[in-house]
Amino acid sequence: MFAESLRTICAGVQGALAATVMGMDGLAVDTHEIEPEGEVDVSSLLIEYSTLISQVRRSAQMFAAGQLEELSIRSEHLTTIIRPVNQDYFLALAVRADGNLGKGRYLLRIHAPKLAKELS
Amino acid sequence: MFAESLRTICAGVQGALAATVMGMDGLAVDTHEIEPEGEVDVSSLLIEYSTLISQVRRSAQMFAAGQLEELSIRSEHLTTIIRPVNQDYFLALAVRADGNLGKGRYLLRIHAPKLAKELS
Repeated sequence: MFAESLRTICAGVQGALAATVMGMDGLAVDTHEIEPEGEVDVSSLLIEYSTLISQVRRSAQMFAAGQLEELSIRSEHLTTIIRPVNQDYFLALAVRADGNLGKGRYLLRIHAPKLAKELS
Repeated sequence: MFAESLRTICAGVQGALAATVMGMDGLAVDTHEIEPEGEVDVSSLLIEYSTLISQVRRSAQMFAAGQLEELSIRSEHLTTIIRPVNQDYFLALAVRADGNLGKGRYLLRIHAPKLAKELS
Protein backbone atom coordinates (compact mmCIF):
# COMPACT_ATOMS: atom_id res chain seq x y z
CA MET A 1 0.00 0.00 0.00
CA PHE A 2 2.81 2.43 0.89
CA ALA A 3 4.80 1.19 -2.08
CA GLU A 4 1.88 1.93 -4.37
CA SER A 5 1.47 5.51 -3.10
CA LEU A 6 5.20 6.17 -3.39
CA ARG A 7 5.30 4.75 -6.93
CA THR A 8 2.28 6.85 -7.92
CA ILE A 9 3.90 10.00 -6.55
CA CYS A 10 7.21 9.38 -8.35
CA ALA A 11 5.46 8.48 -11.60
CA GLY A 12 3.40 11.68 -11.48
CA VAL A 13 6.30 14.07 -10.98
CA GLN A 14 8.69 14.86 -13.81
CA GLY A 15 12.24 14.71 -12.41
CA ALA A 16 11.33 12.71 -9.28
CA LEU A 17 14.29 10.77 -7.85
CA ALA A 18 12.83 9.11 -4.77
CA ALA A 19 9.85 9.14 -2.43
CA THR A 20 9.79 7.75 1.08
CA VAL A 21 7.58 7.25 4.12
CA MET A 22 9.85 7.63 7.09
CA GLY A 23 9.62 7.69 10.87
CA MET A 24 10.66 10.89 12.63
CA ASP A 25 13.58 8.77 13.87
CA GLY A 26 14.96 8.41 10.32
CA LEU A 27 13.89 4.79 9.83
CA ALA A 28 12.22 4.38 6.45
CA VAL A 29 8.94 2.45 6.36
CA ASP A 30 9.12 2.23 2.58
CA THR A 31 11.10 3.97 -0.19
CA HIS A 32 10.71 4.11 -3.95
CA GLU A 33 13.86 5.15 -5.81
CA ILE A 34 13.95 5.97 -9.51
CA GLU A 35 17.72 6.13 -10.00
CA PRO A 36 19.38 4.26 -7.16
CA GLU A 37 22.69 4.64 -9.01
CA GLY A 38 22.48 8.41 -9.42
CA GLU A 39 25.19 10.85 -8.33
CA VAL A 40 23.30 12.08 -5.29
CA ASP A 41 22.93 9.69 -2.37
CA VAL A 42 19.22 10.45 -1.99
CA SER A 43 18.40 7.81 0.64
CA SER A 44 21.15 8.97 2.97
CA LEU A 45 20.20 12.60 2.40
CA LEU A 46 16.59 11.89 3.38
CA ILE A 47 17.70 10.16 6.58
CA GLU A 48 19.91 13.14 7.35
CA TYR A 49 17.06 15.59 6.71
CA SER A 50 14.75 13.56 8.96
CA THR A 51 16.71 14.83 11.95
CA LEU A 52 15.57 18.34 11.06
CA ILE A 53 11.88 17.81 10.88
CA SER A 54 11.22 17.17 14.58
CA GLN A 55 13.34 20.20 15.41
CA VAL A 56 11.47 22.45 12.93
CA ARG A 57 8.13 21.20 14.18
CA ARG A 58 8.96 21.98 17.78
CA SER A 59 10.21 25.48 16.91
CA ALA A 60 7.12 26.31 14.86
CA GLN A 61 4.77 25.27 17.67
CA MET A 62 6.84 27.00 20.33
CA PHE A 63 6.59 30.38 18.59
CA ALA A 64 2.91 30.11 17.63
CA ALA A 65 3.53 29.54 13.93
CA GLY A 66 1.26 26.48 14.27
CA GLN A 67 1.53 22.93 12.96
CA LEU A 68 4.30 22.28 10.45
CA GLU A 69 2.77 21.64 7.04
CA GLU A 70 5.74 21.45 4.70
CA LEU A 71 9.49 21.78 4.71
CA SER A 72 11.21 22.29 1.40
CA ILE A 73 14.96 22.27 0.85
CA ARG A 74 16.23 23.43 -2.50
CA SER A 75 19.88 22.80 -3.31
CA GLU A 76 21.86 23.04 -6.52
CA HIS A 77 21.11 19.53 -7.80
CA LEU A 78 17.86 18.59 -6.12
CA THR A 79 14.92 19.78 -4.09
CA THR A 80 13.44 17.78 -1.23
CA ILE A 81 9.86 18.32 -0.10
CA ILE A 82 8.94 16.92 3.31
CA ARG A 83 5.41 16.74 4.68
CA PRO A 84 4.44 15.37 8.10
CA VAL A 85 1.87 12.56 7.89
CA ASN A 86 1.16 12.43 11.63
CA GLN A 87 3.11 12.83 14.88
CA ASP A 88 5.45 9.95 14.07
CA TYR A 89 5.85 9.77 10.30
CA PHE A 90 6.55 11.99 7.31
CA LEU A 91 6.42 11.72 3.55
CA ALA A 92 9.38 13.02 1.53
CA LEU A 93 10.01 13.49 -2.16
CA ALA A 94 13.33 14.30 -3.82
CA VAL A 95 13.09 15.97 -7.23
CA ARG A 96 15.84 17.00 -9.67
CA ALA A 97 16.56 20.75 -9.86
CA ASP A 98 14.66 21.01 -13.16
CA GLY A 99 11.75 18.81 -12.02
CA ASN A 100 8.11 19.71 -11.46
CA LEU A 101 7.97 20.88 -7.85
CA GLY A 102 4.43 22.16 -7.94
CA LYS A 103 3.13 18.76 -8.94
CA GLY A 104 5.27 17.09 -6.27
CA ARG A 105 3.94 19.41 -3.59
CA TYR A 106 0.38 18.72 -4.75
CA LEU A 107 0.79 14.93 -4.74
CA LEU A 108 2.29 14.90 -1.24
CA ARG A 109 -0.66 16.95 0.00
CA ILE A 110 -3.10 14.48 -1.56
CA HIS A 111 -1.32 11.32 -0.39
CA ALA A 112 -0.40 12.35 3.17
CA PRO A 113 -3.95 11.92 4.58
CA LYS A 114 -4.29 8.51 2.90
CA LEU A 115 -1.02 7.36 4.44
CA ALA A 116 -2.08 8.79 7.80
CA LYS A 117 -5.08 6.41 7.79
CA GLU A 118 -2.85 3.45 6.96
CA LEU A 119 -0.34 4.34 9.67
CA SER A 120 -2.85 4.97 12.47
CA MET B 1 21.61 49.81 3.22
CA PHE B 2 20.44 46.49 4.73
CA ALA B 3 17.46 48.26 6.23
CA GLU B 4 16.50 49.58 2.80
CA SER B 5 16.67 46.14 1.16
CA LEU B 6 14.64 44.58 3.97
CA ARG B 7 12.02 47.33 3.78
CA THR B 8 11.81 46.94 -0.01
CA ILE B 9 11.33 43.18 0.30
CA CYS B 10 8.58 43.51 2.94
CA ALA B 11 6.82 46.28 1.00
CA GLY B 12 6.83 44.16 -2.17
CA VAL B 13 5.28 41.04 -0.66
CA GLN B 14 1.64 40.93 0.28
CA GLY B 15 1.37 39.34 3.74
CA ALA B 16 5.02 39.87 4.69
CA LEU B 17 5.57 39.94 8.47
CA ALA B 18 9.33 40.40 8.78
CA ALA B 19 12.58 40.23 6.85
CA THR B 20 16.02 39.82 8.34
CA VAL B 21 19.70 39.54 7.47
CA MET B 22 21.16 37.19 10.02
CA GLY B 23 24.46 35.51 10.77
CA MET B 24 24.53 31.70 10.69
CA ASP B 25 25.01 32.03 14.45
CA GLY B 26 21.51 33.51 14.88
CA LEU B 27 22.64 37.10 15.47
CA ALA B 28 20.59 39.48 13.34
CA VAL B 29 22.49 42.14 11.39
CA ASP B 30 19.25 43.96 10.66
CA THR B 31 15.54 43.18 10.82
CA HIS B 32 12.46 44.86 9.44
CA GLU B 33 9.22 43.88 11.16
CA ILE B 34 5.78 44.82 9.90
CA GLU B 35 3.69 43.76 12.87
CA PRO B 36 5.97 43.55 15.91
CA GLU B 37 2.87 43.06 18.07
CA GLY B 38 1.46 40.13 16.08
CA GLU B 39 0.51 36.76 17.58
CA VAL B 40 3.53 34.95 16.22
CA ASP B 41 6.91 35.75 17.75
CA VAL B 42 8.57 36.06 14.35
CA SER B 43 11.96 37.33 15.53
CA SER B 44 12.44 34.48 17.97
CA LEU B 45 11.25 31.98 15.37
CA LEU B 46 13.84 33.23 12.87
CA ILE B 47 16.61 32.89 15.45
CA GLU B 48 15.41 29.37 16.19
CA TYR B 49 15.36 28.48 12.48
CA SER B 50 18.87 29.86 12.03
CA THR B 51 20.21 26.86 13.92
CA LEU B 52 18.84 24.67 11.12
CA ILE B 53 20.42 26.33 8.16
CA SER B 54 24.05 25.37 8.84
CA GLN B 55 22.93 21.82 9.51
CA VAL B 56 20.94 21.62 6.25
CA ARG B 57 23.80 23.12 4.29
CA ARG B 58 26.28 20.58 5.59
CA SER B 59 23.95 17.65 4.84
CA ALA B 60 23.26 18.83 1.29
CA GLN B 61 26.96 19.14 0.51
CA MET B 62 27.82 15.86 2.18
CA PHE B 63 25.41 13.87 0.00
CA ALA B 64 26.25 15.67 -3.27
CA ALA B 65 22.99 17.64 -3.45
CA GLY B 66 25.19 20.74 -3.92
CA GLN B 67 25.02 24.22 -2.43
CA LEU B 68 21.91 25.07 -0.43
CA GLU B 69 19.84 27.63 -2.34
CA GLU B 70 16.64 27.93 -0.35
CA LEU B 71 14.96 26.52 2.71
CA SER B 72 11.26 27.06 3.07
CA ILE B 73 9.20 26.18 6.12
CA ARG B 74 5.45 26.33 5.82
CA SER B 75 3.41 26.10 8.97
CA GLU B 76 -0.23 26.75 9.74
CA HIS B 77 0.05 30.50 10.34
CA LEU B 78 3.15 31.52 8.43
CA THR B 79 5.77 30.50 5.92
CA THR B 80 9.44 31.34 6.30
CA ILE B 81 11.77 31.48 3.30
CA ILE B 82 15.49 31.38 4.06
CA ARG B 83 18.20 32.01 1.48
CA PRO B 84 21.95 31.89 2.17
CA VAL B 85 23.71 35.13 1.19
CA ASN B 86 27.24 33.76 1.63
CA GLN B 87 29.05 31.35 3.97
CA ASP B 88 28.26 33.43 7.04
CA TYR B 89 24.93 35.17 6.49
CA PHE B 90 21.41 34.45 5.29
CA LEU B 91 18.35 36.39 4.32
CA ALA B 92 14.97 35.33 5.72
CA LEU B 93 11.41 36.42 5.09
CA ALA B 94 8.34 35.46 7.11
CA VAL B 95 5.02 35.68 5.26
CA ARG B 96 1.47 35.08 6.50
CA ALA B 97 -0.14 31.80 5.37
CA ASP B 98 -2.23 33.65 2.77
CA GLY B 99 0.64 35.87 1.57
CA ASN B 100 2.39 35.97 -1.80
CA LEU B 101 5.17 33.40 -1.48
CA GLY B 102 6.22 33.46 -5.10
CA LYS B 103 6.95 37.18 -4.94
CA GLY B 104 8.83 36.71 -1.67
CA ARG B 105 10.98 33.95 -3.13
CA TYR B 106 11.71 36.14 -6.16
CA LEU B 107 12.69 39.19 -4.09
CA LEU B 108 15.05 37.17 -1.88
CA ARG B 109 16.75 35.80 -5.00
CA ILE B 110 17.18 39.33 -6.36
CA HIS B 111 18.40 40.91 -3.12
CA ALA B 112 20.73 38.15 -1.87
CA PRO B 113 23.58 38.96 -4.33
CA LYS B 114 23.32 42.69 -3.51
CA LEU B 115 23.60 41.95 0.20
CA ALA B 116 26.48 39.55 -0.46
CA LYS B 117 28.44 42.47 -1.95
CA GLU B 118 27.70 44.63 1.09
CA LEU B 119 28.68 41.90 3.51
CA SER B 120 31.93 40.88 1.85
